[in-house]
Amino acid sequence: MSARTSLRLAVRPLSRAPAIGSSARPSPSLARSTVPKLGQRSFTASSSSAAPGSGPGSNAKWKTFAGSAATGFVIAFSIDMYKGYKEANQSTVQCDGAPAVEAIETYGYPWAPVDAIEKDDPKNPMRIRMANWVKSLQDHIVNTMEDIEARSSPNSFSPSPEPPKFLRDTWIRPEGGEGSSCVLSGGRVFEKAGINVSVVHGMLPPRAQKAMLPDHPSLPEPTGTVPFFATGLSIVIHPRNPHVPTVHLNYRYFEIDDPETGKPKAWWFGGGSDLTPSYLVEEDVVHFHKVLKEACDKHDERYWPDFKKACDKYFFLPHRGESRGVGGLFFDDLTTSSPINQPPVSTMPHKTQEDIFEFVKSASSAFLPAYVPIVYKNKERKWTEEERRWQQIRRGRYVEFNLVYDRGTKFGLNTPGARIESILMSLPETARWEYMCPIGAAGSNTPEEELVQVLRNPKEWV
Amino acid sequence: MSARTSLRLAVRPLSRAPAIGSSARPSPSLARSTVPKLGQRSFTASSSSAAPGSGPGSNAKWKTFAGSAATGFVIAFSIDMYKGYKEANQSTVQCDGAPAVEAIETYGYPWAPVDAIEKDDPKNPMRIRMANWVKSLQDHIVNTMEDIEARSSPNSFSPSPEPPKFLRDTWIRPEGGEGSSCVLSGGRVFEKAGINVSVVHGMLPPRAQKAMLPDHPSLPEPTGTVPFFATGLSIVIHPRNPHVPTVHLNYRYFEIDDPETGKPKAWWFGGGSDLTPSYLVEEDVVHFHKVLKEACDKHDERYWPDFKKACDKYFFLPHRGESRGVGGLFFDDLTTSSPINQPPVSTMPHKTQEDIFEFVKSASSAFLPAYVPIVYKNKERKWTEEERRWQQIRRGRYVEFNLVYDRGTKFGLNTPGARIESILMSLPETARWEYMCPIGAAGSNTPEEELVQVLRNPKEWV
Repeated sequence: MSARTSLRLAVRPLSRAPAIGSSARPSPSLARSTVPKLGQRSFTASSSSAAPGSGPGSNAKWKTFAGSAATGFVIAFSIDMYKGYKEANQSTVQCDGAPAVEAIETYGYPWAPVDAIEKDDPKNPMRIRMANWVKSLQDHIVNTMEDIEARSSPNSFSPSPEPPKFLRDTWIRPEGGEGSSCVLSGGRVFEKAGINVSVVHGMLPPRAQKAMLPDHPSLPEPTGTVPFFATGLSIVIHPRNPHVPTVHLNYRYFEIDDPETGKPKAWWFGGGSDLTPSYLVEEDVVHFHKVLKEACDKHDERYWPDFKKACDKYFFLPHRGESRGVGGLFFDDLTTSSPINQPPVSTMPHKTQEDIFEFVKSASSAFLPAYVPIVYKNKERKWTEEERRWQQIRRGRYVEFNLVYDRGTKFGLNTPGARIESILMSLPETARWEYMCPIGAAGSNTPEEELVQVLRNPKEWV
Repeated sequence: MSARTSLRLAVRPLSRAPAIGSSARPSPSLARSTVPKLGQRSFTASSSSAAPGSGPGSNAKWKTFAGSAATGFVIAFSIDMYKGYKEANQSTVQCDGAPAVEAIETYGYPWAPVDAIEKDDPKNPMRIRMANWVKSLQDHIVNTMEDIEARSSPNSFSPSPEPPKFLRDTWIRPEGGEGSSCVLSGGRVFEKAGINVSVVHGMLPPRAQKAMLPDHPSLPEPTGTVPFFATGLSIVIHPRNPHVPTVHLNYRYFEIDDPETGKPKAWWFGGGSDLTPSYLVEEDVVHFHKVLKEACDKHDERYWPDFKKACDKYFFLPHRGESRGVGGLFFDDLTTSSPINQPPVSTMPHKTQEDIFEFVKSASSAFLPAYVPIVYKNKERKWTEEERRWQQIRRGRYVEFNLVYDRGTKFGLNTPGARIESILMSLPETARWEYMCPIGAAGSNTPEEELVQVLRNPKEWV
């Protein structure tokens, strides 16, 4: 912690002992960072963009206490933690594009999951490091989403003056492992948001290994039942306003161990995040893709082109001939022997597990700066009943994809003893199916048709 | 047609040349039949229950003209057609149970699909007979449902004084065949109703035949691409009122032909219908099962026990540990060599294709008397927002079953060129998913819990 210097921002924590229904809630007073105005194309969240009077060497400390002694605790961190993170990746965190700048300037909420970065201890085995990472990232994202709710006014969907909060539900898997589902419903901004962590382990019979082989060529040929470990973070957020897109994130780490030694015999990372708007706002899509691309490029410039294409391929509904959304990032089975990780020149060093984990950390940390500015930019936009109807139709397509094609959902539904409520948390609160829905029809020259065109012909956005 | 005698009832026909949007609509004036009062346990729609002055030998003819010359035509039929149908099956059409009696007495709509019965010509090959049957049955059921709409008052969902009508959509399958989708949305009574016929043919590659083998042991071992023919009627009706159950029907005939001779090499029938209430009304479920059981028993007393069990087994969501609804009838791969069709004593005659078709006709004709009385009995019941919410949650489960497990839906979604709008017509207009929905929880001692208990432990209703 020697890198810590002066500027401290308060982050409202996720209660470690969930107190569901607790009404204690602080009013967050977050520092506003001074960042370039709209039109300037990028900023770095470094010490040079810290709040006045709080640069390196300054003694000014800004703190807020968050939560009661019983349900919360205070995390304080220095802006230099950003710097350390950036330096570790030999790059700067870029939140490029006008919407990001505007939202940062207005709300100043920290993007970097500092608590998660702080907790990562390279001395631990990867399974522990990844489990800690996803848990801390979950805290951080849940807090951010609650903050957005708290900063929005009560409305007809959520008339209470009490800001809506996530239900924090921890669970135990009898066969081994645990998890935590954080779910918000009835929000001012978010109709339904699920932010879910699972850390599970057990024995994998050869049949289950065989079923995984097609998507995981790095898996050794099954010879018997083997121990496995899996941990991941899943997010699906369905906003109320038809002009705010749905977003999805999943990052996961999977390990198969040697039954004799208990050491990892095979492992891989998978993940990504993607955006599903009901209405196309091109600059928002560009922003989303740009932030993800930058997170990739810092680690390997081959990643983005490959993983962007994989995302378009994966989130596709063949029976509709259209993509679920406007894409983003998707990768699976990423390990040191993956073709994309082979050195372009044989004399160059091979990627290590650490390199891949650093990429996963960057990509998953890019979620908030990629998405939140889009939320802020659009959440107060007016919408009509017709636009809501179209959103509900699109949510129907979302349900179709998740129930018919999504590998994770299918795997979950086929796993005896799986926690169905967590698996189906991804489904929207409401969805709609109309026979031959006329909205968005070809030639209608409507904003709805504009979306459909893009879903039928995925674009390069950056 | 020599069996025709006197009493004629008018049936409003399905327009042969669909005039979508046509506002011409007759006010149906249907004859009321005198049937036993509530409490009497059964009635027969025979000449003894005909309207006064209309018995056999009477010359009174009741007619109404239905539709304009351009869009409609008149079908007249005699009550003796009922009799002929019954006699052919050596049994009487029973619509037992109080709700049936009440609805018949009140509304007097004819249950028997007389037009369909009339059109069936035993000289035709079975593919033609079954295609004609399902088309005529579709007409008959569409007309009945429109009649229910017309007899109900406009309401906030459907405020127009013009009674809601089905959209009648005919389509051509480029690879061979055709179909007709009749869809009602925005109804007074029905939120969404789809009544769909398809008659398709083409070539079936060995891979597709192999995929069918597990569910169709009567299929010959695939040796090459073979011609196939399939026709069927599918119905899903989702009412508005949470106290009126959703209903589903499907009857189908499948044939594989000898590529040399063009003659059938293998064929089977499949079908059934089942009820999905949000709230359990035991006497309604008993009525539904009873009518279906009687349709089975007329043909083979082994059918009902077997097909009722098959229905409970098929409409089951393993990931929820519950049935989709309260069951009904389900069978597949029914042909002369099916184990259930083997004579109990070897000296008894074998079942013929004709026998099985007669059963299919009875079972599919039992749809209206099984379902419509339940609609009439409950459609004016008051409901609360909470009951609507529960209905929407149940509709979510319906979507889960159809997208994740239903064989027909999965087959359709995997068939390139399949008509998605017709396949997904079965989905409700709206559905809902809540995380850990508290409604119907174990120990809540609520009507919702009562339903869940039955879905978890299927009952023998008759």
